[in-house]
Amino acid sequence: MKLSRFGGEDALVKIIRDRFAAIPDTKLVLSIGDDGALVDIGSGFLVVTTDLLVENTHFRMDINEPYLLGWKSAAVNISDVAAMGGEPTYSFVSIGVPDIDVEIIEKIYEGLADANAAFGSAIAGGDTVLSETGIVINVTQLGVVEPELAAQRSGARAGDAIIVTNTLGDSLAGLQLLLKLGLKEASRASTHCVEKHLKPEPRVNEARAAVATRKVHAMMDISDGLAADLRRLCTASNVGARVWAQALPLSDEIHFAAARLDADPVDLAAAGGEDYELLIACASEDATVIVQAIESAGSTASIVGHTTEEPEVLLVMPDGTESEFPKGWEHF
Amino acid sequence: MKLSRFGGEDALVKIIRDRFAAIPDTKLVLSIGDDGALVDIGSGFLVVTTDLLVENTHFRMDINEPYLLGWKSAAVNISDVAAMGGEPTYSFVSIGVPDIDVEIIEKIYEGLADANAAFGSAIAGGDTVLSETGIVINVTQLGVVEPELAAQRSGARAGDAIIVTNTLGDSLAGLQLLLKLGLKEASRASTHCVEKHLKPEPRVNEARAAVATRKVHAMMDISDGLAADLRRLCTASNVGARVWAQALPLSDEIHFAAARLDADPVDLAAAGGEDYELLIACASEDATVIVQAIESAGSTASIVGHTTEEPEVLLVMPDGTESEFPKGWEHF
Repeated sequence: MKLSRFGGEDALVKIIRDRFAAIPDTKLVLSIGDDGALVDIGSGFLVVTTDLLVENTHFRMDINEPYLLGWKSAAVNISDVAAMGGEPTYSFVSIGVPDIDVEIIEKIYEGLADANAAFGSAIAGGDTVLSETGIVINVTQLGVVEPELAAQRSGARAGDAIIVTNTLGDSLAGLQLLLKLGLKEASRASTHCVEKHLKPEPRVNEARAAVATRKVHAMMDISDGLAADLRRLCTASNVGARVWAQALPLSDEIHFAAARLDADPVDLAAAGGEDYELLIACASEDATVIVQAIESAGSTASIVGHTTEEPEVLLVMPDGTESEFPKGWEHF
Repeated sequence: MKLSRFGGEDALVKIIRDRFAAIPDTKLVLSIGDDGALVDIGSGFLVVTTDLLVENTHFRMDINEPYLLGWKSAAVNISDVAAMGGEPTYSFVSIGVPDIDVEIIEKIYEGLADANAAFGSAIAGGDTVLSETGIVINVTQLGVVEPELAAQRSGARAGDAIIVTNTLGDSLAGLQLLLKLGLKEASRASTHCVEKHLKPEPRVNEARAAVATRKVHAMMDISDGLAADLRRLCTASNVGARVWAQALPLSDEIHFAAARLDADPVDLAAAGGEDYELLIACASEDATVIVQAIESAGSTASIVGHTTEEPEVLLVMPDGTESEFPKGWEHF
């Protein structure tokens, strides 16, 4: 059966995990299916995450810049390390490029190196090869986390509060502006939303502050949008969720962007995609402590709903009706 | 300047290393430019290697099989870990695929998982994404090595013996048969050479046995051919080399393949490419001990030349004349 008819990326990940993945053992604490893997190296847990970005699947060079492509390729992996409560350490970068100007490759590396430096990491190895059909970047990011602070997707319990950092939907709005208007005009229409899409800031300090409270039940980063990622967290934790549409944190800028796009800001935030904000579940009585910890690390945080025993993941509208989430972004 | 006019992969790696790579520190023992990186994790050195394989640059599906593609993708990274004297532990696999049959993807994973299992490693994570223009596989392989046994490219001294494992050139002969005859007919012409190209066996046990003698000065795996890789080892070690053409180890099968290809077996062995055999430098008085260690691990080993103070890397012909190596395989 063709991949497209098979049930998308999550279905494929499930098959791969069931059939081919290492069985977690005393050393391999966590394997395929979370933001990263955790390996017990004696002195702590090694966090390993990897992401493959393919031109025209994940990025388009006509609405991007080489430096920003490099930055984002590093940032999305650093975000995965943060999602597990870890500190990024070293980055391994594989790049496939057509026969392009060396300057473009250098700009990509500049972005990669800057994003690493900004979050305490460094490029420690890689591979550079020819790829006739377009640019391909794979980053494997290493990090470390204290075993007692490591966060996973699977720890949420029914009745937990659901917290997200900063605002949601800006990146999706930025992408839609880019697709509609091109790089130059979109940047003029909303610098904030375009920057949020092209130059995401992984929430390393916020995640470290959150896990340091020792009250995080489950954590992940929102890479494919709240709708898709909250469902993943719930599936891993065997719970459902209710999210209050009114509680979704919106930036001022998304209203302007949404007007320009003829879209609903709440839809943009709920579907989202590539927000690279944190999604956290904790006991409801601990929510304030975690919100404060995140604020002390320089971001805002909002309680947007709670987990439930019933497995459904639903959006509660202002009039009290419950509805499905707008569909989040998926590969395939 | 376009990449193709810039001086190839080695020139690019140099720029990247000089401008963007982490400066090795107390924790990062070795960075970009060797087979892998070495990170001090307290309990030993973590070995990290990564390789990006792009369809139509590194492999062609018309002369390959999905299972073998998976096997080789894992094997070439495991070979890099072996080259540093390490034991492979965990593999992180990113795959980009067009909308192909899920069965093909499963076959690729089967090969990946089998190669891992054969050498004591396991798949612990990864990413699977859409890549419209062809298959892309990135493997990041982790391993561990005792600090006192870790091998690098840079330790050779002038006057060292140069040792290679098993036979050289079979893989290049296999590739040329595949290109000339197609998968079916090439396999009939030389099962050995085609298998050596499509299903390389990383020399993990041989490398471990070699470093356990504590007499290895420098080691790497031959991925781009003896010509290119010996030059890299010499550059890293600040020496040159003389290799005796007559001493290059040739399989029986390469003679048949070479006849079919109208090629010189010695040229095939000297240029080579994708041999995934070990290249070792050691004091000449220790060469026998290392050869015996490799033999006890189940392979043959041959002394093929020696390093020199002069920086040239030359092939010594049977009549005593010295010549350049035939050009090895390079990306770009």
